[in-house]
Amino acid sequence: MTQYFVIIADSELELIPEGIHDERSVQTNARTRGKHPGKILLDASHHHPAFGKLPESERRGRPDIVHFCLLLCLDSNLSAEGNLKVFVHTRNDDVIAVKPETRLPPHYIRFIGLIESLYEQRVVPSRENPLLELRQGVTLEALVNALKPDQVLVLEQDGAEVSPGEVLVDPKAERVVVIVGGFSKGRFKSDIRKLDPKVISFGKRQMKAWTAVSRLLCSIECSSEGAAAPDADVEPVKPPKPAKPRRAPRKKAA
Amino acid sequence: MTQYFVIIADSELELIPEGIHDERSVQTNARTRGKHPGKILLDASHHHPAFGKLPESERRGRPDIVHFCLLLCLDSNLSAEGNLKVFVHTRNDDVIAVKPETRLPPHYIRFIGLIESLYEQRVVPSRENPLLELRQGVTLEALVNALKPDQVLVLEQDGAEVSPGEVLVDPKAERVVVIVGGFSKGRFKSDIRKLDPKVISFGKRQMKAWTAVSRLLCSIECSSEGAAAPDADVEPVKPPKPAKPRRAPRKKAA
Repeated sequence: MTQYFVIIADSELELIPEGIHDERSVQTNARTRGKHPGKILLDASHHHPAFGKLPESERRGRPDIVHFCLLLCLDSNLSAEGNLKVFVHTRNDDVIAVKPETRLPPHYIRFIGLIESLYEQRVVPSRENPLLELRQGVTLEALVNALKPDQVLVLEQDGAEVSPGEVLVDPKAERVVVIVGGFSKGRFKSDIRKLDPKVISFGKRQMKAWTAVSRLLCSIECSSEGAAAPDADVEPVKPPKPAKPRRAPRKKAA
Repeated sequence: MTQYFVIIADSELELIPEGIHDERSVQTNARTRGKHPGKILLDASHHHPAFGKLPESERRGRPDIVHFCLLLCLDSNLSAEGNLKVFVHTRNDDVIAVKPETRLPPHYIRFIGLIESLYEQRVVPSRENPLLELRQGVTLEALVNALKPDQVLVLEQDGAEVSPGEVLVDPKAERVVVIVGGFSKGRFKSDIRKLDPKVISFGKRQMKAWTAVSRLLCSIECSSEGAAAPDADVEPVKPPKPAKPRRAPRKKAA
């Protein structure tokens, strides 16, 4: 049975960058939440007035995309059958490994709180039960290499168009990495060509990341391979150790 | 070209019921938001401590389900091609008609604000541009009848299991209503048997409403019918007038 690894790549998920900690919308939000700005996730909806000072501001602060894509992956048949593992890779090369048995909060605010805890503790809910684990300084390339795939698929708008019912995966591939962009605008920031991928598309229309994930899961599950009976017994895979840890020294919240 | 009508039925979306307006968690939330409790959507995540006083409390207060399902429907190829119209039907027989061109906020809090405005104004953003329209006192049966379908499909866990690639829709049907439950626990509250439906299932596993919607859209789009070129020119359909309006007299917020 093929083991799939979905990576939500170059996701627009990050803590509020230091350069805008003093901005009014950020300060107000931090006060309301009783948290230091450096421990809050950047959110285009709350912090937009401060975005003028950020490069690539038009695409940043979209943890909602990650949330929704994860909910779809975790509730898929593939995941329930133990044949799917999901990773979030972010614009800052942070990687979140998500265990398939994770019951993610469907409520956005609780999801945000959970990811903020993850950035503080590196693992949630606990070291003994690491459902979500954070590693920093892991490039997309390093993550993909660590997963040792037989095939890498990338979903991109200008990829080769997939027709309904088409089998996406090489029948001989035992380990397949599928990469979907966790952003709403622009293109991958990581150099995906380095991964020697098969670049595919579900149509010329610009679609949301969640639509791409939903089509992808459905295509795999509906192909003969994905529809096989659950019988997999696959070893868990850990994300690689960071090449150069970029973790800043912890500071007390102001 | 077949016209599809997806109804997210018996959705757990409602304003906070009067009986719990005085509960502490409700009062605190209302103060924080600067709104009267009667103008706030019930949310299991915020108001849970007050749920003990509500019947069927284990399933209520889940506007997040409606949010996700709508985001999936509105970004589907079917909708982009003009062949899908979505309605939300709630536990209280409120019906929200959603125009296909609606760009719904992906951010949960903004979605909640939008639906609360809809309950105040009956139409948003404006009468001139009614993207979302609310009618109250419309049963699921009345809504389905008003849509004059040739076929009614209902997704239910114990329905006839659909195999991958199976064509769900009668090839002669021009107007197809598909009903998905907008709740996380239990069964339909409306009597779906009255609708003479074909009851189908995507597997015995209990799946989230968004997974069901995602599988459904994918199944329709991947079948030969759904994959046809966009050429439809379908008249817009309005939800029926309420049989017995149940709207309470408007009161000033306290």
